[in-house]
Amino acid sequence: MATQATTVTIIAERLLQAKITALLDETGASGYTVVEGSGKGHHLTRTHDRPSIVRDFDIVRIEFVMTDGVHAREIAQQIADTYFKQYSGIITIAPVEVLRPELF
Amino acid sequence: MATQATTVTIIAERLLQAKITALLDETGASGYTVVEGSGKGHHLTRTHDRPSIVRDFDIVRIEFVMTDGVHAREIAQQIADTYFKQYSGIITIAPVEVLRPELF
Amino acid sequence: MATQATTVTIIAERLLQAKITALLDETGASGYTVVEGSGKGHHLTRTHDRPSIVRDFDIVRIEFVMTDGVHAREIAQQIADTYFKQYSGIITIAPVEVLRPELF
Repeated sequence: MATQATTVTIIAERLLQAKITALLDETGASGYTVVEGSGKGHHLTRTHDRPSIVRDFDIVRIEFVMTDGVHAREIAQQIADTYFKQYSGIITIAPVEVLRPELF
Repeated sequence: MATQATTVTIIAERLLQAKITALLDETGASGYTVVEGSGKGHHLTRTHDRPSIVRDFDIVRIEFVMTDGVHAREIAQQIADTYFKQYSGIITIAPVEVLRPELF
Repeated sequence: MATQATTVTIIAERLLQAKITALLDETGASGYTVVEGSGKGHHLTRTHDRPSIVRDFDIVRIEFVMTDGVHAREIAQQIADTYFKQYSGIITIAPVEVLRPELF
């Protein structure tokens, strides 16, 4: 019963949470999971800061799974283009198998 | 020292947390990690609701790693069969490498 | 714009959080994400306990992404060698694609 799918994981500053989830709602991601955490390091430093400055951040980890890998990648790229030119963040894309794909 | 293993990730409504972890204890999953979060979208809506209703949920993300991929899949399927006919949720299965497999 | 990268996920007792993140800072991991959770099972039991004792733990899930997979594995192994002989924990390594690799 397992089907190939794509997991997209977005690590961002927490202040972007509402904007990113609103964009996910608009793009048709059928659902997502949000977990709060903290992070450190220059990849989460705003681009106008010097990379050598190490800071702690309140971050949010947003994850969504889609059976349509092409659409998942389009959404991931749209988030990167919309928010991560101004703010730093990470988006990773990984293949997974999913049970119960009829719900996606 | 890395060994092939399987990660199973269960996203469920938080009210199912105790039941799912009890089932994991019974099935022999040697350990698991539980992280609380929130979620949105019709894949986390109960099946008696209309898919068009978008709601926020308290969710739980339960993760376990096993070197025995067949057993990991059996446990994942058992959780889906036991709980996710009544409640919605997601289970993803992904290959990973694990350090220190002697502990699994 | 996607580039191959490696995600390392460390599951440890929360009391090790500061030590592990300090080691990540020293080894040149450019950033990491920390999420707090709970866990259960003998793979999170300290090695001087009997495996049959099942306990709940406050755990921490630390994740980092690197485009240099060899370096990522070296760091993962160093963490295992440094802390997980005395304390139990899990480290998994998985391939991902990452957007915006210029920030890593």
